[in-house]
Amino acid sequence: MPRVTELRVRTDAIGRVALLAVLAEDPRAVIASATGYRVVLGQVGTMDVQKIIAAIETAARREQIIGPEYSEEHALYHAAVEALYGVTRGQIALGTMLRTVGLRFALVRGPRFSGDETNWIAVAVYGTIGQPVKGMEHEAAGLGIFHV
Amino acid sequence: MPRVTELRVRTDAIGRVALLAVLAEDPRAVIASATGYRVVLGQVGTMDVQKIIAAIETAARREQIIGPEYSEEHALYHAAVEALYGVTRGQIALGTMLRTVGLRFALVRGPRFSGDETNWIAVAVYGTIGQPVKGMEHEAAGLGIFHV
Amino acid sequence: MPRVTELRVRTDAIGRVALLAVLAEDPRAVIASATGYRVVLGQVGTMDVQKIIAAIETAARREQIIGPEYSEEHALYHAAVEALYGVTRGQIALGTMLRTVGLRFALVRGPRFSGDETNWIAVAVYGTIGQPVKGMEHEAAGLGIFHV
Amino acid sequence: MPRVTELRVRTDAIGRVALLAVLAEDPRAVIASATGYRVVLGQVGTMDVQKIIAAIETAARREQIIGPEYSEEHALYHAAVEALYGVTRGQIALGTMLRTVGLRFALVRGPRFSGDETNWIAVAVYGTIGQPVKGMEHEAAGLGIFHV
Amino acid sequence: MPRVTELRVRTDAIGRVALLAVLAEDPRAVIASATGYRVVLGQVGTMDVQKIIAAIETAARREQIIGPEYSEEHALYHAAVEALYGVTRGQIALGTMLRTVGLRFALVRGPRFSGDETNWIAVAVYGTIGQPVKGMEHEAAGLGIFHV
Amino acid sequence: MPRVTELRVRTDAIGRVALLAVLAEDPRAVIASATGYRVVLGQVGTMDVQKIIAAIETAARREQIIGPEYSEEHALYHAAVEALYGVTRGQIALGTMLRTVGLRFALVRGPRFSGDETNWIAVAVYGTIGQPVKGMEHEAAGLGIFHV
Repeated sequence: MPRVTELRVRTDAIGRVALLAVLAEDPRAVIASATGYRVVLGQVGTMDVQKIIAAIETAARREQIIGPEYSEEHALYHAAVEALYGVTRGQIALGTMLRTVGLRFALVRGPRFSGDETNWIAVAVYGTIGQPVKGMEHEAAGLGIFHV
Repeated sequence: MPRVTELRVRTDAIGRVALLAVLAEDPRAVIASATGYRVVLGQVGTMDVQKIIAAIETAARREQIIGPEYSEEHALYHAAVEALYGVTRGQIALGTMLRTVGLRFALVRGPRFSGDETNWIAVAVYGTIGQPVKGMEHEAAGLGIFHV
Repeated sequence: MPRVTELRVRTDAIGRVALLAVLAEDPRAVIASATGYRVVLGQVGTMDVQKIIAAIETAARREQIIGPEYSEEHALYHAAVEALYGVTRGQIALGTMLRTVGLRFALVRGPRFSGDETNWIAVAVYGTIGQPVKGMEHEAAGLGIFHV
Repeated sequence: MPRVTELRVRTDAIGRVALLAVLAEDPRAVIASATGYRVVLGQVGTMDVQKIIAAIETAARREQIIGPEYSEEHALYHAAVEALYGVTRGQIALGTMLRTVGLRFALVRGPRFSGDETNWIAVAVYGTIGQPVKGMEHEAAGLGIFHV
Repeated sequence: MPRVTELRVRTDAIGRVALLAVLAEDPRAVIASATGYRVVLGQVGTMDVQKIIAAIETAARREQIIGPEYSEEHALYHAAVEALYGVTRGQIALGTMLRTVGLRFALVRGPRFSGDETNWIAVAVYGTIGQPVKGMEHEAAGLGIFHV
Repeated sequence: MPRVTELRVRTDAIGRVALLAVLAEDPRAVIASATGYRVVLGQVGTMDVQKIIAAIETAARREQIIGPEYSEEHALYHAAVEALYGVTRGQIALGTMLRTVGLRFALVRGPRFSGDETNWIAVAVYGTIGQPVKGMEHEAAGLGIFHV
């Protein structure tokens, strides 16, 4: 039985909301608490970097967390790539470096810090990275934030 | 008054413990729940990458989360550098790229996943990165994990 | 006597305007032709990457090509860093790799493509890079573009 | 109708010649003015980095801007890769990061600066980079220069 | 007839043993002299980075230079990747950058320096890198070292 | 007493000559055997990347392994930087990442492969990298090769 605890956390900054949404047992609690933020969740397991970006973009469009204009797509793309720097740590490459990931991701839109009136997008990813052999992996995480 | 909520989270994987320790309002709750893990906390504000690494190493030695042998230092160093890839997203550089950070960090030692008998070290960092002007910053985070 | 010629060029895309402004004998001709774009020019010679970014930011603020909010600064910063990838080709580092630059830069604000109603910022840089010995250098250029 | 203007530009440095050749409405004017330089032009649209390099090498061989010896190929290859740093800004990757390019390129051979008796090769690229969806792109450029 | 000479070399450091094993005419002489070290040899010719890593991992498992636990695999993987930084010099990519390699590799396990009681793994690679055309290549080498 | 052995090695390729010169107990044996190659040796201990490059350039000029023209300096510079990719494995940075090196280097000029009539320059470096604490280091090596 997994060990579960209760933590007091602040949900008043866009990056923290995104990270908590991928770490929490039940992300709905984060979403409920993060007033002023829109949150979209997803997951992806792959050896192809482009599939992570595609999964993020598909979720974003389907849930309309970004609008149809290119500047919104551009912000999301850069936020996703910056999150992948944290996951891959050195080269944004997976299968071509013989490694695979299983990731949860959260896309959050809203003020940089709660109360702030600007509009940003955050992409948080969390999961495992490792050899394409079960059990040969450890955790990885990343966070990217861009103005919309 | 900052908005604070209660979240149910699992504390049975080394990276999640490290990330929660830098995100929680009171890291002692994470530490109390993360049985089987040793946790060391610290913070650093700087424009020099080497001062982040030095702060991490100093905290690790002072709290003896690593032993005196070089292999332990080597594991910690690589975990710290990998966490910095997530923070810096592209080039591990701060002041030389005219940016500054204010970071909390957590060093965690223990099994990769709870119940696993191996011994790993995780470094999580979370805080802000931005121009050396107050208010010109956004959040950043990183996670590095190495076997000890 | 430098060889000078007349070229027919389109000035209806933000990146081309920025590149032409750093390449033209008289950038005022580019500025005059680039209706719908605001253009700020500057130059910097240095071995410190941060001084290039500082020169760009100072010119941008002085000429008010960006507004006071952080999202504008954030867009400019990322555009500048992306331009520096082109100049440095591998590691965003100058004096620490024993090389120096003499650069002209152009900051351009306006639509991505003329007629487009969105708002972007482009940073173009052009000049020389080389050893800190006169004559030991060749040309370098870079272009970064971000939505504002 | 695209907006076109006349610009006075110097064509007495190898990199500027290469950049102008990819930016000018009619590159023949650049070529005519750039006495002492050989210029080869081409274009490529792709999601594969290797296809850009292949298109550059094929054009270079067909137009014999490089000789058959490996040192010439080596110079061209490195100049091409350095130009791609400017286009890709961080990771030399396209489709694997879910992005595509449409590029013009110019290969120029001749003195580093007009009057100089040395022999260099420059590769300039200019075009668009973006999502594999029409309209979801912005401009990108790069310049690489190597001694032959 | 290849020119061969006799050299006096020290074989009392893990990295030097690994490099000599890929450079020597007959690696058995290195192995015989390197008391206290286990050495596994292999070779691989490919345009795919993942095939180099796979060849290294397969040889390591077949010759049992690493044990079955993930921490051993993790050390080997990171040592292999670090060796590839030396081979690829900038981007860990081969065919996607239109280049190919023919490499010998040596995996060495034992003390960091002879007499030292710790346990490390070194990966050395040496061979040629170049265009996928015979004769269009030059040498490349890399060395990665991790604690086990 | 250090363990020393005799190895049969080929000295008919520029990169192997350079690597053997930094690995051999007595580099004069390598130099004597490497007919057709000029070899310059040096060493440097530092936390500053630029001091390694400066030491290499100073040795090259003093021993006139490169001529006074910039193309020769350019070849040497790029060969040195490529060797440093192997030493630093990810970011060409030392003190700014809280690490230091003690390195021997060899500069070799001559044919790519013995018998070949072209002219190349190789830079090999070998030594230790680690924390600025005695004993906290392991070996590192790199090789860069450019046409002259």
